[in-house]
Amino acid sequence: MAVPPPAHPRRLLPLSLGLFQGALLLFFAFFITYDEPSAQAEDANLVANQLSGIFPLFQDIQVMLVVGLGLLLTFLPRYGLSVLTHNFLLLNFSAQWALVLQGLLHRFHHGRVHLDLRNLLTAEFAAVTVLISVGAILGRTSPCQLLIVATCEIPVYLASEWAIVTCLGVLDMGGTITIHIFSCYFGLGVSKALFGAAHRPVHPKETTTPHSDLLSLVGTLILWVFWPSFVAVLCQPGDAQHRAILNTFLAMSASAVTTVVASSLLERDSKLSPGHLQNGSLAGGVAIGAVADMAVPPVAALALGNLSAVACVLGFKFLTPLLARKVALQDQCGIHNLHGLPGILGGAASAVAILVASEDTSGWWGDRGAGGQALCQAVGLAVAVGGSLLAGLLTGAALRLPCLAQPPERLCFDDSLYFKIQDQAESPGPGGTAEEGALALKERV
Amino acid sequence: MAVPPPAHPRRLLPLSLGLFQGALLLFFAFFITYDEPSAQAEDANLVANQLSGIFPLFQDIQVMLVVGLGLLLTFLPRYGLSVLTHNFLLLNFSAQWALVLQGLLHRFHHGRVHLDLRNLLTAEFAAVTVLISVGAILGRTSPCQLLIVATCEIPVYLASEWAIVTCLGVLDMGGTITIHIFSCYFGLGVSKALFGAAHRPVHPKETTTPHSDLLSLVGTLILWVFWPSFVAVLCQPGDAQHRAILNTFLAMSASAVTTVVASSLLERDSKLSPGHLQNGSLAGGVAIGAVADMAVPPVAALALGNLSAVACVLGFKFLTPLLARKVALQDQCGIHNLHGLPGILGGAASAVAILVASEDTSGWWGDRGAGGQALCQAVGLAVAVGGSLLAGLLTGAALRLPCLAQPPERLCFDDSLYFKIQDQAESPGPGGTAEEGALALKERV
Amino acid sequence: MAVPPPAHPRRLLPLSLGLFQGALLLFFAFFITYDEPSAQAEDANLVANQLSGIFPLFQDIQVMLVVGLGLLLTFLPRYGLSVLTHNFLLLNFSAQWALVLQGLLHRFHHGRVHLDLRNLLTAEFAAVTVLISVGAILGRTSPCQLLIVATCEIPVYLASEWAIVTCLGVLDMGGTITIHIFSCYFGLGVSKALFGAAHRPVHPKETTTPHSDLLSLVGTLILWVFWPSFVAVLCQPGDAQHRAILNTFLAMSASAVTTVVASSLLERDSKLSPGHLQNGSLAGGVAIGAVADMAVPPVAALALGNLSAVACVLGFKFLTPLLARKVALQDQCGIHNLHGLPGILGGAASAVAILVASEDTSGWWGDRGAGGQALCQAVGLAVAVGGSLLAGLLTGAALRLPCLAQPPERLCFDDSLYFKIQDQAESPGPGGTAEEGALALKERV
Repeated sequence: MAVPPPAHPRRLLPLSLGLFQGALLLFFAFFITYDEPSAQAEDANLVANQLSGIFPLFQDIQVMLVVGLGLLLTFLPRYGLSVLTHNFLLLNFSAQWALVLQGLLHRFHHGRVHLDLRNLLTAEFAAVTVLISVGAILGRTSPCQLLIVATCEIPVYLASEWAIVTCLGVLDMGGTITIHIFSCYFGLGVSKALFGAAHRPVHPKETTTPHSDLLSLVGTLILWVFWPSFVAVLCQPGDAQHRAILNTFLAMSASAVTTVVASSLLERDSKLSPGHLQNGSLAGGVAIGAVADMAVPPVAALALGNLSAVACVLGFKFLTPLLARKVALQDQCGIHNLHGLPGILGGAASAVAILVASEDTSGWWGDRGAGGQALCQAVGLAVAVGGSLLAGLLTGAALRLPCLAQPPERLCFDDSLYFKIQDQAESPGPGGTAEEGALALKERV
Repeated sequence: MAVPPPAHPRRLLPLSLGLFQGALLLFFAFFITYDEPSAQAEDANLVANQLSGIFPLFQDIQVMLVVGLGLLLTFLPRYGLSVLTHNFLLLNFSAQWALVLQGLLHRFHHGRVHLDLRNLLTAEFAAVTVLISVGAILGRTSPCQLLIVATCEIPVYLASEWAIVTCLGVLDMGGTITIHIFSCYFGLGVSKALFGAAHRPVHPKETTTPHSDLLSLVGTLILWVFWPSFVAVLCQPGDAQHRAILNTFLAMSASAVTTVVASSLLERDSKLSPGHLQNGSLAGGVAIGAVADMAVPPVAALALGNLSAVACVLGFKFLTPLLARKVALQDQCGIHNLHGLPGILGGAASAVAILVASEDTSGWWGDRGAGGQALCQAVGLAVAVGGSLLAGLLTGAALRLPCLAQPPERLCFDDSLYFKIQDQAESPGPGGTAEEGALALKERV
Repeated sequence: MAVPPPAHPRRLLPLSLGLFQGALLLFFAFFITYDEPSAQAEDANLVANQLSGIFPLFQDIQVMLVVGLGLLLTFLPRYGLSVLTHNFLLLNFSAQWALVLQGLLHRFHHGRVHLDLRNLLTAEFAAVTVLISVGAILGRTSPCQLLIVATCEIPVYLASEWAIVTCLGVLDMGGTITIHIFSCYFGLGVSKALFGAAHRPVHPKETTTPHSDLLSLVGTLILWVFWPSFVAVLCQPGDAQHRAILNTFLAMSASAVTTVVASSLLERDSKLSPGHLQNGSLAGGVAIGAVADMAVPPVAALALGNLSAVACVLGFKFLTPLLARKVALQDQCGIHNLHGLPGILGGAASAVAILVASEDTSGWWGDRGAGGQALCQAVGLAVAVGGSLLAGLLTGAALRLPCLAQPPERLCFDDSLYFKIQDQAESPGPGGTAEEGALALKERV
């Protein structure tokens, strides 16, 4: 791909995205098809039932990623349009890229790829890792840099997921280890390598307003509501899926209440911090993923929700400032508190749950034994942390390439850098006088 | 529980909530389990089908309560974060508390409790009553007082629901009597006992802005869309559920149009009142609950929607000011107009529907006869009104205890009382000068 | 209907709506019923399964129309409440009116009408055409005029749908031709006839703000997420529905990415235009409707998404200004770019798809042959464009009747024309002094 002349560095984004769309068309034309002979031969009623079982959950997850996560990230008042758009663009680009890579892998083994809703779902799951990771560098990177992150992260995720789930046999239906921990440390690696060791003062545009906090909280609530769908969608229909839904609900309910307790105890005057609430309420959902479909007692889900919310709030209060001071690690959205700490708790919980599980559930891990399986969970956790951190550092280093790097003041929290936003005071429209424009502005304020 | 020293009255909330979480863990550890032997033995396909039938409706209801109702209550511009958070906290606390009480009742009769999605659903329904009731005292009570209301209301609700549905055999699938009427008069009782006879002027912060009205209307629309799920979720799958969905849709559609008619006719210049629209559109859903699954003709659903919207708008225009003037009853959100008046209409409609029902539907009420069943509906209505009003008055009196009461000026419609909100003008961040801060504030405005 | 005296022209809306509600009650009382003997005799399990297959999709579509489309239209900052309310009112009025007309048609042929969820769905689909059409005249028409549009458009839509689908046998599961193209050209016809040849300057209130663009983008995202439900809901359950979901997802994903490419390449400084993003992301969903359930290869869905997004963005950039200049055609929301151009692309694509389809899918069009069916698609497209344009022009002419026309300055983009909005500076409430009111206003700003 020819690098465009430096006079138009901003053309890089549309040109590379356009090339990618062209390549995607070619790839789909040659490798992807729908017509599964098996599906056509089978009982149409069964296909319809399976579809009506999975499709509503798929839609729930789409709402979470597009609307919920998008709104959650709009907490910076002058950066809402950009963050909503970046989230949307990254989701689509990453899912398409994951479909391509999955298709290539499958093609390598089995020939022509037959697309179905389950493929889309795994591609969406891959895209989620990108959406989480970029939270660490939110608002201080160009759209082009974000696309590079997505391009690098998706193949690493697929490899890591293959290593952890397929090779090691780690049990992780809700993606605690493969999605949350992986994407958290990948994002932290990118942030560290990209921003280096420089201590950075808080930017004045980096403060929230009550209104931006409100919209962000709405995003949290949407995520909170639909999280059980995210955890349960790939579980075995029937008892396991039922358990996954109940466990996730209990963990998230416990998180929500515990976040209020923890934030209120830690803050001056017992006031709540909006940031704690926006993140802590979801911590239980992150942590429960690895054990959601196991036959753990309900009290374990509650306890995990409580603990992860406490860990998340403590992380925001103490760990994030500490990491910023000691190792100059910048984490704009606090992904380490929402995805890292609860994820580690959840991974550890899955090992413990396996060790204390009763005999009759040993069908989960075959002849490996409970001890062996618990060890696997721990090894999987370590692989996820180590692999993602390394890959993130390399990706972050790539983002400092001269053709991508932009002066930092061009990147900070400003919608008008990326959007053509009408300023009423300056251009009141062809038909209006300056007076009308000033009036309109005044009225609007 | 040791009352904390008066120097830190605000620690009361996190400490008592924390204690409750601890007690909840103990209770779940001893009494609650998932592993239903029956479910494990049964046909897994059937369990999966039942789950895929009920789970999407459960999610719809969660969206209504967490996002829809939360947004509906944000009509006060300076109180959005608080009200969204109170709603979310109360929902979770109340549902957990209802699970405990349901578990205790069940344990008393049958031993160990086997949790399933239906238990969660009935716990959510119990929590709804709290969310409705606190609408009467919105913005003038501390979070601690709201938790006391929840603590008192849930057991009374369970007792009332048992008396009305189990003992009296009242037919009320959509909760018109057991949920809406009950919670309305409970809330009015609390308001009366808490605020006493003092006439209170309208607080200047109590006015809405076009923007807060817009978000509130979005909340209404979310509730409007998902209301059929709320009414139909517990109906018998098949014809009855189908009828409940259609009836609810027709009633709400009629309400929406009639609200515009009524508000436009009553207001000066034929303008609409945002408050009428936000509430009246939902009145049909409240009223239809008791008859939704009965074999009433579709025209009855439409007429009920029309009537309840008219009642709601008339209530806002004439009854609420009258009650405030004559009996000093304060009803901040107008719950009497949205839940009380349409609820009474709906309860009366259920008695009429039973009286005029054709012979072949008498399977509903066994050998009691249509007249007997209609009488039951009326008695159930009276029990719900009387019992809830009494319990609400007692709860409101408890809220005036010295350890809970706070000076009223500490409670009025102010997010910054409960939230640590960053004020950019005062603290422009460590790295910014005061000038940058002022600039940021100016730009933000 | 007696025209009210000119002194109260605004009473026209509530009075005519009220009369319509009364007539609706009469119609339902005489003609509509639920009790389908067949449904009562059949297997209740099957009914329940069908319901749980279609109801979640019905709810998704309701969210799209009420919340998603409503928010999308709030891009004018001072017109949000009005546009959300108009959208909601028009949806309900149009669906009721469509139920009446459908009922009359059915009654004429088969006797008493048995209402089910599928009837509601087709009524909602009819209402969608009204919601799309009024986008062309948004903010410059009174609510009464909008109701006239709905009253005229619904019967024309039903006739056009009957002619295109039933008579011509056009294949169009997702409504590309029957809904999107029809409503687009109907709306443009209304706009042309209503506003005439006058060139109109841009009104100063017609500019967006970053905040209004954000809410509008949230509306787009909600539409984007649920669009697969809209396209797939009426497809044959099983493979065809599955394909429709996948095709729609692929087309919309391609649209989202391509919109960023196209907008970024066309705009100065490579910035994105919020309007392009709000509309272009959805263009793929419009175009895919006619081919979604056909056995097209996945690459066709992607390509259609790409092309329609490019067409939409080019339309906004070049065609809309051109049409405004050359033929004085005003299109407030750019419905021609979102529904017209992608619709024509989609209609053409359906003809091409039929021509190149393999032999074994010829079951779609019986003994007509692929060529004949492709011709049908083209004729259907022409009928939709021509019929709707003509009917729209007639409707627009009717809107200029003296009893309906209002001075234009009473209609432009102002919530306070239709809503009683509290202005804190003027009326700080009974209990507040002017000083408090001024303070409240200052704080609010």
